[in-house]
Amino acid sequence: MTKTKINPDLQEERDKIAFNIEEFTNWYYKGAEKVEEKRFLEDFFLSDQELMDKVPISYLSHKEKYEQAIRKVVLVVKKIQELQAQGRASVDIYMALLGGTLGTALFNESNPITVHFVMFLPALMNHGTSDQQALWISRAWNCNIIGTYAQTELGHGTYIRGLETTATYDPATKEFVLNSPTLTSYKWWPGGMGHTANYAIVIAQLYSLGKHHGIQPFIVQLRDEETHKPMPGIKIGEIGNKVGMNTVNNGFLAFDNVRIPLNHMLMKNAKVLEDGQFIKPKSSVLTYGTMMFVRVVILKDMASYLSKAVTIALRYSLVRRQSPIEPNKPEPKIIEHVTQQFKIFPAVAKVVVFKITAEFLWDMYNAVTHDLDKGDLERLPELHALSCCLKAVCTNEAAQAVETCRLACGGHGYLNAAGFQDIYGMVTAAQTYEGENTVMFLQTARYLIKAWNQAMNNEKLTPTVAYLENYVNGKNSKQPFENSTRGILRAFQFAAAKKIAEGNQQLEKRKKTLSPEEAANQTGLVLTKASELHCQAFLLQAAIEVLEESAKNVSPQLGAVFKDLLELYSVDLALRYTGFLLEFSNMTSKDIQSLQETLEASLKKLRYNALGICEGFDHPDGILNSVLGTHDGNVYENLINAAMKSPLNQEDVNKSFHEHLKPFMKSNL
Amino acid sequence: MTKTKINPDLQEERDKIAFNIEEFTNWYYKGAEKVEEKRFLEDFFLSDQELMDKVPISYLSHKEKYEQAIRKVVLVVKKIQELQAQGRASVDIYMALLGGTLGTALFNESNPITVHFVMFLPALMNHGTSDQQALWISRAWNCNIIGTYAQTELGHGTYIRGLETTATYDPATKEFVLNSPTLTSYKWWPGGMGHTANYAIVIAQLYSLGKHHGIQPFIVQLRDEETHKPMPGIKIGEIGNKVGMNTVNNGFLAFDNVRIPLNHMLMKNAKVLEDGQFIKPKSSVLTYGTMMFVRVVILKDMASYLSKAVTIALRYSLVRRQSPIEPNKPEPKIIEHVTQQFKIFPAVAKVVVFKITAEFLWDMYNAVTHDLDKGDLERLPELHALSCCLKAVCTNEAAQAVETCRLACGGHGYLNAAGFQDIYGMVTAAQTYEGENTVMFLQTARYLIKAWNQAMNNEKLTPTVAYLENYVNGKNSKQPFENSTRGILRAFQFAAAKKIAEGNQQLEKRKKTLSPEEAANQTGLVLTKASELHCQAFLLQAAIEVLEESAKNVSPQLGAVFKDLLELYSVDLALRYTGFLLEFSNMTSKDIQSLQETLEASLKKLRYNALGICEGFDHPDGILNSVLGTHDGNVYENLINAAMKSPLNQEDVNKSFHEHLKPFMKSNL
Repeated sequence: MTKTKINPDLQEERDKIAFNIEEFTNWYYKGAEKVEEKRFLEDFFLSDQELMDKVPISYLSHKEKYEQAIRKVVLVVKKIQELQAQGRASVDIYMALLGGTLGTALFNESNPITVHFVMFLPALMNHGTSDQQALWISRAWNCNIIGTYAQTELGHGTYIRGLETTATYDPATKEFVLNSPTLTSYKWWPGGMGHTANYAIVIAQLYSLGKHHGIQPFIVQLRDEETHKPMPGIKIGEIGNKVGMNTVNNGFLAFDNVRIPLNHMLMKNAKVLEDGQFIKPKSSVLTYGTMMFVRVVILKDMASYLSKAVTIALRYSLVRRQSPIEPNKPEPKIIEHVTQQFKIFPAVAKVVVFKITAEFLWDMYNAVTHDLDKGDLERLPELHALSCCLKAVCTNEAAQAVETCRLACGGHGYLNAAGFQDIYGMVTAAQTYEGENTVMFLQTARYLIKAWNQAMNNEKLTPTVAYLENYVNGKNSKQPFENSTRGILRAFQFAAAKKIAEGNQQLEKRKKTLSPEEAANQTGLVLTKASELHCQAFLLQAAIEVLEESAKNVSPQLGAVFKDLLELYSVDLALRYTGFLLEFSNMTSKDIQSLQETLEASLKKLRYNALGICEGFDHPDGILNSVLGTHDGNVYENLINAAMKSPLNQEDVNKSFHEHLKPFMKSNL
Repeated sequence: MTKTKINPDLQEERDKIAFNIEEFTNWYYKGAEKVEEKRFLEDFFLSDQELMDKVPISYLSHKEKYEQAIRKVVLVVKKIQELQAQGRASVDIYMALLGGTLGTALFNESNPITVHFVMFLPALMNHGTSDQQALWISRAWNCNIIGTYAQTELGHGTYIRGLETTATYDPATKEFVLNSPTLTSYKWWPGGMGHTANYAIVIAQLYSLGKHHGIQPFIVQLRDEETHKPMPGIKIGEIGNKVGMNTVNNGFLAFDNVRIPLNHMLMKNAKVLEDGQFIKPKSSVLTYGTMMFVRVVILKDMASYLSKAVTIALRYSLVRRQSPIEPNKPEPKIIEHVTQQFKIFPAVAKVVVFKITAEFLWDMYNAVTHDLDKGDLERLPELHALSCCLKAVCTNEAAQAVETCRLACGGHGYLNAAGFQDIYGMVTAAQTYEGENTVMFLQTARYLIKAWNQAMNNEKLTPTVAYLENYVNGKNSKQPFENSTRGILRAFQFAAAKKIAEGNQQLEKRKKTLSPEEAANQTGLVLTKASELHCQAFLLQAAIEVLEESAKNVSPQLGAVFKDLLELYSVDLALRYTGFLLEFSNMTSKDIQSLQETLEASLKKLRYNALGICEGFDHPDGILNSVLGTHDGNVYENLINAAMKSPLNQEDVNKSFHEHLKPFMKSNL
């Protein structure tokens, strides 16, 4: 590679960064060793010419996009196998390459066999007996078969018990017979199911000896291993293109009397005997684990995707000049406009806070699964409640922040070459999948209402809701607001507690005339807000604890940056929720003026260091995949070069001129 | 067409609508005659099989999308000419067909010759002398030439004076020589410029006899009329694909000593004589007119696009069943969840309010241009200030509401067949074009600060800011808040006035140490908010005036619906701005509780009539273009039928299986 000249507008910004970026990077990625590994992998994959797109993916037809994705995913998995053979990569590499920033950079959006690794294989491990594992896992691990995980149906998402696909045991042949009795029972959405996978784990309602035994997992062959033709009775295809993730090959699947042998029901938990007798599972709690694991991954992803968006928007803002501030001076860098700083810097702080919180949730997840293995279920509901609201808040905020970053780049942000649309497509999908966000908030609210009642009864609370004790029975209601990160945290906890109390009161009142369920529905608007406030308090608390502690263990320069980030994060948060804080806490109008001043001061403090943080996220150009965000800052050359790659620009005159336009233009002469 | 069976879940909803939908439609579109015309046009174009896409556009490659758009736009313009020959269509038809809901339905997003009709032709009329008009307009009107309008450059958007393209007059040959001296001076963005137009009006810095005379419009031939090859010295192509509007063929253009004759400068205003002498224009105000006209169009578009999104989301919510409320009852329609109503009903009210306000602005625009023609410029700054903030607020809110509607449809909303992405692509583009929204807010703020100072000096204020008089010098500061639409309006005006006052105070303070311009920049966050609050107050005022007046002139049933819509719009607005209302007006926490109750009650009131309003927007299926929003409500059949149209589903096995997947799957055996 030839060294390109760095745009001097960007270089002068780098010269003003007041801390060691590498120190930040090592802190952010938990150690120099992990950073080295990350850089090795990025280089190993991004430097492979066979994985580069000659024509950017977005110009291809839907079908071509799929074909490209298959070609590339095969290459990528081969390269992974090569690394593993050399002992140079752990199992985690599949996560990094098939989701994560590296994976999404390689495939632009995602790819058709992620579900094989992150859902099909884990489901075999979680639900298969040891015999079944022996039979299936090595075939799957070596990719001799490619699987998917078929749960959601056309008419049934969040409410799993409503699934309609049936698996009826036939003792005469010792087979299950699978059927899709209605249109709404079509399996719909599984990644890779359209044209890629030849096996699936199918979740279906089990019937045996005329009795219904709830939903159970079955392994079903979808396509012939030699010809890839659909098996008899299988109707299968893809569900059509989407806002994003178009290379995932999401599919549909319907069964018409498809017969599978008895041992294709995954029987680690529930069992069916040869005579059709059903044996109940000991516990059904374990399935929660996977859902919560996925939510941790989603939180990490939100931090990664948003970190790409802010890096692009910030670098562009440092080289783009527009709209003079002073009439007789040249147009300034757009970052000099305070309104521009306000669009980007708070999002930089969010990246760090989401990352910190993802790690907290990951540690909690590991502790709880450790407890679970010992049969201790005590902390499971707390983890579940926390993971629900965090998933909702972080995906909502990331989606909004990515769009703000795009809009901060003006017209050029609207170009696909800017890279924002690919990021947004991934982020906004997460607002819906793995639990729609409103449903998530209401799940958390249920836990909070319970906790509030425990607090009122002086019962012991779990750690993440322990703060509620400080606000029952009018406690602490006179404490004045204090403009500090901890003062803001207390105000959020106060507001959350009062909003939960309001929800509780409304529920009790409505329960006098309505069923508890309908009362909860009618109280939905208050409950979702209570859940959101609780979640924001939690995020802020995690930020305070981790950033204050980290500041002690790094250089004073980096420590100061942590302090500035925390300040910006907290005042920005407070100013976005003044309605609730004024209503419920002891904040007053004067406090808002003071917060506004702190906000403006903290934007100033981060004016130069924000770039240091973004560059500390350490995304090479191949990961950012954006003409506006390259390390050299040469955005205008990049824009023109990218335009020249358009297939339309490969010829002076498009054939449609001769076929349609010219005859028309001449016809009215 | 065979009559499809209406989904009974949707039919029972229609049976509960308590007013006459046709009465609403006639009110909304300003008379039965206009409704008839609209329906005639929709049917005339949407029933033409040649205009139907066999494969949905979104599956095509970028190049194929362009070729389709050219084929179709030629057909559409021919059909328009046919109608005009029969005397069946006015000039307005170009607006309806090239923008508007009908046009976007025909082309999915937009098309490459809209700019010819809405910018090139008007610019010829506005800037050409009568000789120039005689020369060019009939050729353009008959489409013998196709033009575009080239102003924005790669490095220059909002700040027009910064444009770099030069046109230097050469008296020796009586020609202008056009050049693009830098990369940043490349023309960038004009619609149809990539491969479609053969002429352009180019805005360039005029130099003559060694002197600079500011920006002027020139007509430049881009491509040969026979071969369509670029003319000598012209570098031209498209700028690459985008989030949306991919069929617009936005282009770039650079000049290398391109010579055009003297009479190709459009000289209705400024002139250059043969000897190179420059004659100044009498007034430069007139160019404002076009910008404001476009903003009126944008407001109307926001109402139309959002009306499609809410119709889709609401119809889907009436047939989709999910998540039981009561444990032993079937899954309810998702509209029964109060949180779902809250996502959709306020957006329905916004459509109506945006439409009303667009009409108000349109009337004001006509009055002001009438004054202008008489040389009276007095109301121009007020119109400009109002159009800026309305453009910003309505595009921001529409973008957010469209996304909320999409997310309200869960996973299925993420499918392109749901139709939201096409709508969003158009709506979010408007957040940036014709004046980036933050710049828009700051423009309005400048006017508001001036008005505030006038109010403090007891000077007469223009009508749209007259309310400020009520709040200077502490006036009305004791008036308690009242939970009514007018009470909410007063609270907004109070808060806007106080926020403007805060901005003014900060500006004055900063001006002691900073230049006025830098002081304004530092006060940017307060000023943008002041502008937004003022705009919300204006929207609410327009809604109150028009809906209250309209309620008197319609049936009592429809009048009641207007009242309900207004109530929902105003309480929803108040609850979204409680931070500012608590800080600045006399609203208290107790008032919020009461507003919350009103909100919940008004959602209930609209539970059945919301569908009536959406159906009153009168979008046939061909306009909605959504599997989730069809009139028959058969969403699951639609989803499967749409999936079957995917080119990937036309064959059982994709070739990539044999080329890549199978060899790989067999390699690890």
